[in-house]
Order: sequence, then structure tokens, then C-alpha cells
Amino acid sequence: MEQTELTITFIGAGNVATHLAPALARKGGRINQIYSRTENSAQTLASALECPFTTDLTEVSPDADIYIVSVKDSALEEVIDTLTRHANPNALYVHTAGSMPMDVWKGKVRRYGVLYPMQTFSKQREVDFASVPFFIEAACSKDTELLEELAGRLSPKVYKASSEQRKYLHIAAVFACNFTNHMYAISEHLLKAHGLPFEAMLPLIDETARKVHGLSPVEAQTGPARRDDRNVIDRHMNMLEKENPELAALYGLVSKNIHIYESKRTKNDKLRPYENKGSVL
Amino acid sequence: MEQTELTITFIGAGNVATHLAPALARKGGRINQIYSRTENSAQTLASALECPFTTDLTEVSPDADIYIVSVKDSALEEVIDTLTRHANPNALYVHTAGSMPMDVWKGKVRRYGVLYPMQTFSKQREVDFASVPFFIEAACSKDTELLEELAGRLSPKVYKASSEQRKYLHIAAVFACNFTNHMYAISEHLLKAHGLPFEAMLPLIDETARKVHGLSPVEAQTGPARRDDRNVIDRHMNMLEKENPELAALYGLVSKNIHIYESKRTKNDKLRPYENKGSVL
Repeated sequence: MEQTELTITFIGAGNVATHLAPALARKGGRINQIYSRTENSAQTLASALECPFTTDLTEVSPDADIYIVSVKDSALEEVIDTLTRHANPNALYVHTAGSMPMDVWKGKVRRYGVLYPMQTFSKQREVDFASVPFFIEAACSKDTELLEELAGRLSPKVYKASSEQRKYLHIAAVFACNFTNHMYAISEHLLKAHGLPFEAMLPLIDETARKVHGLSPVEAQTGPARRDDRNVIDRHMNMLEKENPELAALYGLVSKNIHIYESKRTKNDKLRPYENKGSVL
Repeated sequence: MEQTELTITFIGAGNVATHLAPALARKGGRINQIYSRTENSAQTLASALECPFTTDLTEVSPDADIYIVSVKDSALEEVIDTLTRHANPNALYVHTAGSMPMDVWKGKVRRYGVLYPMQTFSKQREVDFASVPFFIEAACSKDTELLEELAGRLSPKVYKASSEQRKYLHIAAVFACNFTNHMYAISEHLLKAHGLPFEAMLPLIDETARKVHGLSPVEAQTGPARRDDRNVIDRHMNMLEKENPELAALYGLVSKNIHIYESKRTKNDKLRPYENKGSVL
């Protein structure tokens, strides 16, 4: 789709807006106004973008082509209610909240959707949008294309995802990020309890993340649970039981689940030989 | 400790030896012989090092200062038995097996220890030893220093670790690497089941690994379980329950354990304010 001049009003001046607005401005987006309830935030972002700001949602610009709403999930419905009664009725309205359905817009405006950049943002840290996946959804296909073009200015990774798919995306991210981080935390706990520094684990942590760039995680799996090495598994569970029964239970359940995945893999995948990835674990 | 000229015989020509021997040769180690049961492996590595090889352990060189044994765990005791009856009785003997105790040498030779490089090795893939942590142990302090100097030629990350500590190191690696990889596998499974590509998760996976380079994992934790957000947790568990009760159980147990860690953290750490890391999750 051809790049068109788009006038954009940002509703919100938090972490997402602080990164997204300047990035879009650099790619031909004309940011014509910032709204934030918090004057200081509104002013900071507006001055970076050299555009006006308001702290009164009833005074929002009526001239935008797109309104991008990046506010807390808990504030979203109230903001939408006021915004849609004062802004351009012909514009496209999107929010950036991964866990909120598109239908929060339904009945309020004609053209609406979601523009969700899936990444951890903090105001202090630079974001390289080129590696941020965007998930988009719109009520009509013309607007889906428009969002695809807009997100495509920032990132090569733009995916269409329904509100239903985004729910599973969130659970998948809980496993791949929140739960992964907890595995790191348990590792640190065990190392520290036995006088070893967590930093010693970082090279293996990095390599584990790097490996799944080229290999499906099910193929990349190594360790006693994949090999179903009951000697090692039982020894580890006994050691954990003594210091922390909760960890022993977790070790048992994850190991069991690895074994289930491995059984499914070898069943579905009979023609491919078992490859030893040369792990030390 | 000053770098001395050391003559080294490698016992084994598998993944570890294939990387370790040339790396030590580049740092002043004189590799005088390779032993492997498999002629092809012995020949390949020996020709890369321009040194002799043997496939007969009774013909091992009697002139080495150090014998480095890198064979399969299951073969280690038998190899040690034959080796120590034919090699230099005054030399230092080490194995490179993380999960084997140092005492496998006890009663066989006077000077012995462990030189364990903790990394996933495969013959095809280059290893950057500068980022590989080495864990060393020796029966006497003079040999600990010698191993410290030797490992220090390859890596700035050399740690003394007892056989007991190495056991916990292994469990810690199972959590941080094997179990982490399984969290990736579950994430892929959920994404694929709902028509989304796993590659969309890679930027968040990378960021999750990167974060713990500068922040303790317990501090870096984000997500519904850390916030104890029962609404989200219950919704996720209901969704998982329908498609896969095993995953629901796992989700519940990991969430519960994150909550336990978070409670301990805030109790032990009362003076530090709760920092919001600005996560979208």
C-alpha cells in the first residue's frame, strides 16, 4: 500500500506513546496533538514532537485521520467514551492494548481497530522498533490495510491477529517471558544457596535463547527429561525435596511435560532421526 | 600465576576435546598426543593439531604434564582405570565432566581434579571460550592454581567449585536452560494452535534473556503472577484447562511459585521501593 500523509492524535503519553509517537513522526506521520491527563507527561512528549497538547479530552483535535489510544487498560473504556464523542467521527480509532478486545470500540465509532506492538517498553530505554512485532486488527479490511502500512513503516514484522488470537498470544508470552524469567530466578536461588554466582549461568541462558532462532524449541530440547533419564531426574528431585519441596514439585511437573512433548514429537515425526545436539546437560 | 610450558595429552576426541584442545594449543599448550577409541575421530583431531594419535589406551604417552579426559560419563571409570596404569604417575589428571565427582580419581593417582567448561558444544559450531565459564577443582591447592592459570588462558570466567557445588550447578542449568527451553516449546505450541508464528515471540525472548544481565531475575520478574492479578491468572487457567489440563496445572504451579518468590523478595527487601519495570505483560 502506498504511504499516505496521515494526521495522528495520540491519546496518552505513557511508555508506549513516548516511543511510538516519535517513531511514527520520523516515518511521515504528522502528530497534531498529544492528550494526557497528566500535564507534565503531555508537555514532555508534545515538546519532543513540537506539537500542541491538552489535558482535557473534550478539547481533543477534531482533525486527525487516526486516533491512537495508549492508556492503562483500566482507563480505556472511560477514555473511549469521552474521546469518541468529541473527535473526528470519520477517523480511524485504535488502541495499543494487547489484552483488550477490539470490540471496546463497537457502537461508538464506525472505523476502529487495534495496533499492538508486543514489547516491554520503559521510558528510559530506547526501543528498536525494527525488531518489535506488531499485531493489528480492524473492523473493515480497508483499515486493516491502512494499519498494515502504518505498522510496516516501523517494523518488518506485522501480523494480523484477532482479539481471540491476542488472548493466546498473551498466554504464550507469559510462558516464554514471565515463566522463563522465573526459571532464571530459581536457577539464581539454587546457585546462590550453594555459593555460586548467577552470572556463571548467563552464557548458557544466552545460548538457549539464541538456539530457538534457528530451531523449533521442541527440536532444541536437551537435558535429562528429554532423554527420560530417570537416574538423574530422581537424584535431582531428592536433592530439591530436602531444601524446597515446592521446587521438587515444579521440577517433576516440568520434566513430565517435557517427556509428553517429546513423546508427541517422536510419534508425529517418525521419519526424522533422533539428533543428539551435543549438549553437556 | 606465571604461564608455564605444559605438555598435554587429550583422552577423547569428542565435542569437548575438539574445541578445547586447539584452543589450549593456541595458548601455549603443547598437545603431544590424542587418544580416542574411534580411529577416525583421533586422526581428525590429531591432524588438526599436527600431533600423533593412538586408539590403544595402553600406549598413551608417558610424558605429559596433564592428562585431560573428555569421554562419555558412562565410559569414564573404565578409561581412568586403564589410563592411570599406563601414563605418567607424576602428572595432573583431570576430567571435563560436570556431573562426575572428582573422587573418581581417588586411589588411582596422586594429583587429580576437574576442569569443567559449562557450555553446549557441538563439533560443527565454533565456541567462543571467552564467554564460557570454567569450573575447576583439584585435590591439592597447587593444582587448583595450575588449573586456574590454564583455564584463565581461555576464559576470564574461572570459578572454583566442589563436586557438591557442581551437582547444584547442574540442577540450576536444568532450570535456566532445559526448562526455559520447554517454556519456549509451550509458547510455540499455543501460538501454532491459534495460527500465530513462534518467530513473533523471539524479540521478547531475547529481551527476557538480556534483562537478567543487568538485573537479578527476581527483580526483573513481570507479569500477572508477580502482580498477583487473580483475574488474569484465572482467565488464563480456564482457557488452558479447555485445551490442555496439563498446561493449566503447570501454569498454576509456576504462578504460585512466582508469588512465593515475590513475597519473600518484598519481605527481605523492605527498604527498596517496588519498581514498575514498564512491562506490557
